[in-house]
Amino acid sequence: MKLEDIQNPQFLKTYSNEQLTMLAKAIRDFLIEKLSMTGGHLGPNLGVVELTLALHKEFDSPKDKIIWDVGHQSYVHKILTGRADQFDTLRQFKGLCGFPKRIESEHDVWETGHSSTSLSAAMGMAIARDLKGTDDKIIAVIGDGALTGGMALEALNHIGHEQKDLIVVLNDNEMSIAPNVGALHNVLGRLRTARKYNKAKEELESLVRKIPAFGGKLASTAERVKDSLKYLLVSGMFFEELGFTYLGPVNGHDFEALEDNLKYAKKTKGPVLVHVLTKKGKGYAPAEMDATGNWHGVGQYKIESGESIKPEKQTGPSYSKVVSDTLQKISRNDDRIVVITPAMTVGSKLVDYGKEFPDRLIDVGIAEQHATTLAAGLATQNMKPVLSIYSTFLQRGYDQLVHDVARQNLNVVFAVDRAGLVGADGETHQGVFDIAFMRNLPNMVIMMGKDENELQHMVYTAIQYNNGPIAVRLPRGNGSGVPMDEEFETIPIGSWEVLKEGNEAAILTFGTTIPLALKAWEILAKQGISVKVINARFIKPFDEELMLSLLNEGLPILTIEEAVLQGGFGSAVLEYIHDGGFDHILVDRMGIPDCFIEHGSVDKLLNEIDLTTEAAVERVKRLVNRKTKKGLLT
Amino acid sequence: MKLEDIQNPQFLKTYSNEQLTMLAKAIRDFLIEKLSMTGGHLGPNLGVVELTLALHKEFDSPKDKIIWDVGHQSYVHKILTGRADQFDTLRQFKGLCGFPKRIESEHDVWETGHSSTSLSAAMGMAIARDLKGTDDKIIAVIGDGALTGGMALEALNHIGHEQKDLIVVLNDNEMSIAPNVGALHNVLGRLRTARKYNKAKEELESLVRKIPAFGGKLASTAERVKDSLKYLLVSGMFFEELGFTYLGPVNGHDFEALEDNLKYAKKTKGPVLVHVLTKKGKGYAPAEMDATGNWHGVGQYKIESGESIKPEKQTGPSYSKVVSDTLQKISRNDDRIVVITPAMTVGSKLVDYGKEFPDRLIDVGIAEQHATTLAAGLATQNMKPVLSIYSTFLQRGYDQLVHDVARQNLNVVFAVDRAGLVGADGETHQGVFDIAFMRNLPNMVIMMGKDENELQHMVYTAIQYNNGPIAVRLPRGNGSGVPMDEEFETIPIGSWEVLKEGNEAAILTFGTTIPLALKAWEILAKQGISVKVINARFIKPFDEELMLSLLNEGLPILTIEEAVLQGGFGSAVLEYIHDGGFDHILVDRMGIPDCFIEHGSVDKLLNEIDLTTEAAVERVKRLVNRKTKKGLLT
Repeated sequence: MKLEDIQNPQFLKTYSNEQLTMLAKAIRDFLIEKLSMTGGHLGPNLGVVELTLALHKEFDSPKDKIIWDVGHQSYVHKILTGRADQFDTLRQFKGLCGFPKRIESEHDVWETGHSSTSLSAAMGMAIARDLKGTDDKIIAVIGDGALTGGMALEALNHIGHEQKDLIVVLNDNEMSIAPNVGALHNVLGRLRTARKYNKAKEELESLVRKIPAFGGKLASTAERVKDSLKYLLVSGMFFEELGFTYLGPVNGHDFEALEDNLKYAKKTKGPVLVHVLTKKGKGYAPAEMDATGNWHGVGQYKIESGESIKPEKQTGPSYSKVVSDTLQKISRNDDRIVVITPAMTVGSKLVDYGKEFPDRLIDVGIAEQHATTLAAGLATQNMKPVLSIYSTFLQRGYDQLVHDVARQNLNVVFAVDRAGLVGADGETHQGVFDIAFMRNLPNMVIMMGKDENELQHMVYTAIQYNNGPIAVRLPRGNGSGVPMDEEFETIPIGSWEVLKEGNEAAILTFGTTIPLALKAWEILAKQGISVKVINARFIKPFDEELMLSLLNEGLPILTIEEAVLQGGFGSAVLEYIHDGGFDHILVDRMGIPDCFIEHGSVDKLLNEIDLTTEAAVERVKRLVNRKTKKGLLT
Repeated sequence: MKLEDIQNPQFLKTYSNEQLTMLAKAIRDFLIEKLSMTGGHLGPNLGVVELTLALHKEFDSPKDKIIWDVGHQSYVHKILTGRADQFDTLRQFKGLCGFPKRIESEHDVWETGHSSTSLSAAMGMAIARDLKGTDDKIIAVIGDGALTGGMALEALNHIGHEQKDLIVVLNDNEMSIAPNVGALHNVLGRLRTARKYNKAKEELESLVRKIPAFGGKLASTAERVKDSLKYLLVSGMFFEELGFTYLGPVNGHDFEALEDNLKYAKKTKGPVLVHVLTKKGKGYAPAEMDATGNWHGVGQYKIESGESIKPEKQTGPSYSKVVSDTLQKISRNDDRIVVITPAMTVGSKLVDYGKEFPDRLIDVGIAEQHATTLAAGLATQNMKPVLSIYSTFLQRGYDQLVHDVARQNLNVVFAVDRAGLVGADGETHQGVFDIAFMRNLPNMVIMMGKDENELQHMVYTAIQYNNGPIAVRLPRGNGSGVPMDEEFETIPIGSWEVLKEGNEAAILTFGTTIPLALKAWEILAKQGISVKVINARFIKPFDEELMLSLLNEGLPILTIEEAVLQGGFGSAVLEYIHDGGFDHILVDRMGIPDCFIEHGSVDKLLNEIDLTTEAAVERVKRLVNRKTKKGLLT
């Protein structure tokens, strides 16, 4: 059977284990080949080939609902639900999404990009089912790393209490995105080794039965001892204690074991946890041997060697690395610095920092709420915590940012990574809301550098700043290769920079859209239109002196930002202008419109939403013409 | 000793248990008397009198850091740290804050209003201490209800793993804000009853020692059995398993038991959990007998009877009750409705709803993240979930709102309670950010009614709406007593309402600031200035027809909102105007400035920030004069 011919998973029902094994091999070959060209989450998907096949054999999707907590682990599921023929377009503009997508298939019942959401979603579906009186099975597949996310723990607590029929498949691959942390992981570690205690357990139980007193007054206690042995020897008691029936551990690459346990789970009343052990990267040597998480998400690679094919465009260092290197240098002379990451040591390029300062890099796992308030706690003791966090994941720590950090006006530095469009990861990962949700908070300082050199100075500036929270935004990807200053400089808080002079209009922009503005300036200059270009590197607070001089000049203003327009930087400009009584100033705003932006290369996405040089040129011309026509200037 | 003479807790060091008992009595009498006049969190504070005394006797605050997770439980702590003389001003404007406040005292090391933050803060302080090499003790006091909050669970996980010296006092009062829910609570329930197993445990241990085989090959297993008995009989294994030393349960009203356990905790290495049982309302009969949480936070009351003294102003029903009653009526004919509350059944007046629809009121405990995504899960199954949540607590579910609800465009109704200023609870509870953090999200509809009658129609409208998430904001407190329509009406999405006609300026406002605008209209009318007043009940989307006609009229606009100005409704008006090319329109905005607003009566607070009728009158006049002078209108 060609994978491209699969329409839905029904054919699996009659498949023998031998057939499944052959199919698994075909799927692995397919993924290794396709992803070598498109890139994608190879390691995680190679790990769940058998598990996905077993789930689709045992359950009836879409009537039964399979929820992939780790959405990037749904490739095999996509193959089995009729989408193999789209893998050449994976994660590309208008192509197959790298995460479950409801619009793609009725088998995608829940969309996930951020982790730890599946249990709450499953519980919602189970409650709905029971209120309706139908009998669909609800299965959530969650990784061991995602379990440390607070919302997953909240959900476990609720599910255990309500005793709904619901199956949680714990996909324990001994390594989530990066090597796991936390006490809960120790529990899982003990579960993993529990198999060797089975013999000891039997022996002990037989001994206990021989104790004479157990026939008498201690009978009920004896029952508890029996229970306790299970706790002791398997340590699955964490889940049992929360009210789940615990099954496993199961070899996640053994079809027979998977089938046995899933069948048993299916007929068990109440919540069940099936603990499945899988190996990330299974079946592809370079990915199997990966200890740091490099094969978690990959770009193009050579199949034979596993060598990665670097895109040619990368001229400068990655922005994340610039932040990390800068922190590393400063930390040598500043004992106050502590860097916190929620499971993104690799993604945020903090590995070298951690090697030099093992006590001062704290990876809390997928736990953004805790990470944010942990930073606040450190700040109360006059330390200088740096929370390195993706823009989109900072949403998870929002109340902690508002209530604990900003409200107490604590000196926490936020290195807001992946700010702006992120490209292939798409909707769930675009870092486009952070300006809107941060700038409304009192005490916040928000900045973004025009290049990697300014970025390093901003990191330094943030560390020197002692008047409250300060956020440095940095985009995904690599800098343009500008020369890096040897000495760090402090950038005055709220200072902007005039990049180009001009007298007919002004463009206010920052970060990734500065090159676009400079190109527009050039084109406009050739057409005889003189435009000022300002690096508005502080999104909050403004450079009031520069802003006022601009307003007094009466120039029309175009703001450009790679962030949502609603409540964004341009909106702040409008507020400033009207609060100052400069209501006559013409303002136009470019940015991300009021919709979620899908996956695709950043260039294509920017083009799609008209965030381009050409659009900027047109907008400036329109402003200049309107000014002239309406004669609105004082 | 007069409580008002206490400067700091040093004097406790030499106090005998008899003296402590007398002091506890004096403190209870003081609280019962003072709070009968000011109102406040009586029940919780009566429960922790002995615990607070014991903590301050055993530890050296502020060198040792005592963190009150449940910040409203810090009254006794405030008395012991020199603030008894300020209790007449409790929770009043410029008076003593009802929560820990760092500016009030060096003994307040961490500010808390939202729950579940203390463990993360404590961990941050412990890491800071160890990096600095000092030896202060860190003690977090957390309630059993707050433990279900995901961030507390994230922190427990991290603390257990890192094995920092840190003491968690679990203040288990068998009832958090409302009767507790969740599996974790069951664990705590078992802990509570564990005392009676102590004898059985001893007997069993002695028997185990007599088994001959235990001297031999099963020796190490025997050690595990011993451990397991602890798990089995005390069930404290949840915490032990996470890496904590578990002490307790301790009678939280017994000075000797408290002292023994705190002393032991102090000298134990690694994280310790001291499980303390307290009784909310202890020592005041009406509060002790409270089963529903009515004495959690109270207004004025008569000491003898416990009868509450109702403020005279309340003429209409509470807004929360209007929402609940409306949902109750609609639910009789609409099986899709499920109401979710994160531990606010009482606060959001959902008790009656739960009585009639026990299966359709889901109290998830303090778990806002789970609550939000649970609603999303229900919505995928064509149910109509209503998440009833305080504005300030919605911040905890922000990523879930963005990533799970808005991004998937699911039909979740948000009943955003306590929107706007909340008064006495102050900074941590003001519901002023939600417009700014919601309106930047695609797919969101946000509305607020002008009175309780419009509110009921909005709830009905939200239930009928099937195009994505929709939020109904409602303020704290009671309606003005307008007549309530018998029949529900659907309000067209995005429709505004002209309340007063006028031709010199327009006021756009909604919700609680409408009365202010109407008064301003009246005053201005008397002065011969004709102003339009518009009920802009949809904050998103706008009434484009009305807005365009307004802009075409060229009237200057004043926006008024009881929410932050940065990124708020007024900001949306500016965006709309400039996007439409109406740059010449004069706009002024009134709202909450860029700072956190402290506690005090809402009237006083509004006055303090110039959100008043007088200010509106002045602003309109200024607009009208500017318009005339500058001749900017086309």
